[in-house]
Amino acid sequence: MAQSDYKTDSIFISKIFNTALSEGKCYEVLRHLTQDVGSRLSGSAGAAKAVEYTRDVMTGEKFDNVFLQNVMVPHWVRGAKEQGYIVSGKQKINVPIAALGGSVSTPKEGIKAKVIEVKNFQELRDLGVEKVKGKIVFFNRPMDPTRLNTFVAYAGAVDQRGAGPTEAAKMGAIACIVRAMTTRLDDVAHTGSMRYASGAPMIPAASISTNASELLSKMLKEKPETEFYFKQNCETLPDAKSHNVIGELKGSKSETQYIVAGGHLDSWDFAQGAHDDGSGCVQSIEAVRLLKVLGYKPNNTLRAVMYMNEENGLKGGIAYADSAKSKKEKHLAAIESDRGGFIPLGFGVVGTPAQKAKIVSWSDLFAPYGLHEIGPGGGGADIGPLGQQGTVLLGLIPDSQRYFDYHHADNDTFDKINKRELELGAASMAAMMYLLDKYGVE
Amino acid sequence: MAQSDYKTDSIFISKIFNTALSEGKCYEVLRHLTQDVGSRLSGSAGAAKAVEYTRDVMTGEKFDNVFLQNVMVPHWVRGAKEQGYIVSGKQKINVPIAALGGSVSTPKEGIKAKVIEVKNFQELRDLGVEKVKGKIVFFNRPMDPTRLNTFVAYAGAVDQRGAGPTEAAKMGAIACIVRAMTTRLDDVAHTGSMRYASGAPMIPAASISTNASELLSKMLKEKPETEFYFKQNCETLPDAKSHNVIGELKGSKSETQYIVAGGHLDSWDFAQGAHDDGSGCVQSIEAVRLLKVLGYKPNNTLRAVMYMNEENGLKGGIAYADSAKSKKEKHLAAIESDRGGFIPLGFGVVGTPAQKAKIVSWSDLFAPYGLHEIGPGGGGADIGPLGQQGTVLLGLIPDSQRYFDYHHADNDTFDKINKRELELGAASMAAMMYLLDKYGVE
Repeated sequence: MAQSDYKTDSIFISKIFNTALSEGKCYEVLRHLTQDVGSRLSGSAGAAKAVEYTRDVMTGEKFDNVFLQNVMVPHWVRGAKEQGYIVSGKQKINVPIAALGGSVSTPKEGIKAKVIEVKNFQELRDLGVEKVKGKIVFFNRPMDPTRLNTFVAYAGAVDQRGAGPTEAAKMGAIACIVRAMTTRLDDVAHTGSMRYASGAPMIPAASISTNASELLSKMLKEKPETEFYFKQNCETLPDAKSHNVIGELKGSKSETQYIVAGGHLDSWDFAQGAHDDGSGCVQSIEAVRLLKVLGYKPNNTLRAVMYMNEENGLKGGIAYADSAKSKKEKHLAAIESDRGGFIPLGFGVVGTPAQKAKIVSWSDLFAPYGLHEIGPGGGGADIGPLGQQGTVLLGLIPDSQRYFDYHHADNDTFDKINKRELELGAASMAAMMYLLDKYGVE
Repeated sequence: MAQSDYKTDSIFISKIFNTALSEGKCYEVLRHLTQDVGSRLSGSAGAAKAVEYTRDVMTGEKFDNVFLQNVMVPHWVRGAKEQGYIVSGKQKINVPIAALGGSVSTPKEGIKAKVIEVKNFQELRDLGVEKVKGKIVFFNRPMDPTRLNTFVAYAGAVDQRGAGPTEAAKMGAIACIVRAMTTRLDDVAHTGSMRYASGAPMIPAASISTNASELLSKMLKEKPETEFYFKQNCETLPDAKSHNVIGELKGSKSETQYIVAGGHLDSWDFAQGAHDDGSGCVQSIEAVRLLKVLGYKPNNTLRAVMYMNEENGLKGGIAYADSAKSKKEKHLAAIESDRGGFIPLGFGVVGTPAQKAKIVSWSDLFAPYGLHEIGPGGGGADIGPLGQQGTVLLGLIPDSQRYFDYHHADNDTFDKINKRELELGAASMAAMMYLLDKYGVE
């Protein structure tokens, strides 16, 4: 960039941040989305309300065009609240428990069996079928607390939740319980998706809190015949009709080239989904709104996209990319915010080396706002499918320390959001959209 | 640094962070300090308990030497909880209110008068004595939300609280109320210190919540004869005996050269003081403990210092520096953590250009832990007096976005602390102590 551009850009970006912090709207939109609309698992009434609400917000802001995109989504329901307890002799100790998304129910009377604790799949296989058969497998490998980036710690533990039930079933287990995916020791149940491998028996699977996991582990060491009981009532209904929600500002030079910012609109069924990912949705709307109220005339069409079904299917992200391809919409870049509404620290960029270098060259424009980490890294699940069309993928990177305290849990509530942190994330996305739009990605 | 030192240092610093995150103790110490000891304003029973407790913690950790340092402190007490309401005709609207630290009480029956709202001292003076006389002056200039660093926004507004009562009294006001020092709009009363200039009348002064301030301002615009009533029961007792609490690891090369890490042990009387400044205290103990458990043999004597009376007098910091001077203890460097237990982003350094350059040259060792902001900036109030002895002053800089949501208020509670963020701050301080000790400051 020439010196004059730097000056122009730094002034405009300063206006973006000032406006976000002094006249921001995303905090109040998030309040409504989390406290009034509430939970919004794909296929639920809450998800349908969230579609209407976010459409209305963007219509109210007079975006050039606001529309829905049809998506067929999985429709899993939890049913009556789960029960779970540890059984040791005549003692029953209730524990916080949540069925994993996609799991089958237990028999109506629940399921009770001895427990075999393992830390990983190899340990499970080494035990052999004889020792596992007829038991409940208990995956209890904690997230590594020494990983600075908690997403890395999560990635190193979440195989237990996603594939654990099938691995356990292959060894003859009749059910599976998994330690909650958080570094905190507390009494919060965290759900999340799992998938049965085709051909393997579909056994019921649930997650229990970290404190309960520590207790069960201790009791098993003292008394290996300790049993576990749980009852859950979940089921998978036929796929349901739902929507991505899209709002756009038309490009002045090209209406068929796009830069999009998005988050996912669905949440787990018992969660307000404030950080996951109400934040990303309202920040995306706010990013586009900020550019609009500041009078920016984009070269390309800018979109805010609320993807449906990130949590248990990714059907929204796939449908969005399929539509882009079939309509020959060239997506230059897609930004996702799906790591919580915490203080923004940078962006992860997926693209060619030249594209990455170009974006990294804007670092000085972000540094005054604390965004020091602009470089290689993940984009986001929803925008992943666009990557096959040559779209540059960018993920907003907020501080990750608090994210897994609330992830997929009923404590992911609006009061955990700091207004300024949320607004700074929205402003960061607006600034990135502006630079991508002005300078392109080649 | 030679390449080999960099490698040695980066490995040792990695051990510091790993240990803090996997075997850290500061979170549980803070739980006890905030939830069991509780509030600890200078001169109170809570402050005395906090002195004993933190001494016991360091003794329990087998620091080489743990001792108390006598400090005489101001002893202000709030008395019975304040009452305050807006009076408009027959309507009375109760508002969240807190006497400012150091304020006199109202008359027993309270004080009621018309209100004159101003944004700054110039506006007050321009009104003239005639318009102010006999009224309650209402300082209502908000903290500037567009300042990225909320401490800068605070510094730009806090003159209203510190000097406002005297400025109002000079113009004939009979009392003073001040908008709470926070960017949030909420119903939380925030206290904080004020001082009467000698010679000026000592009028009662209190702070009301931001929502109440917005409401009162609106009502005054509609109906200038709107009145305000409040009653407070505070008083200043004779100075009390208290203590700084000090724990140390003896230096192997010099026992009379010191590097210290500290926070202030006192809090406001109705606050747990989790972020302000229980965090800084437990991080300082933890920083020294981490170096001890990792087997580090310091060149200089390392100390954790809990300063008493930062909130309303700074007597602990002054006594500490006076003692250092009289005992000819050469303090190479002092680190303070008094900006909350949030995610650490860097250190502010006060020293000679050469000293600053030396510390900045260690930046690459901190960058992997997200500490990107190592450079000029404040140290901390308690260590300020050491600056006159040529001590390099360093302030831990955590993210500032959430700090003033809780500052000097009853919502500054333990549940607002994230364990990992707190631990990362402690590890950052330990790493800085290690480098300062190993390489010195010249």
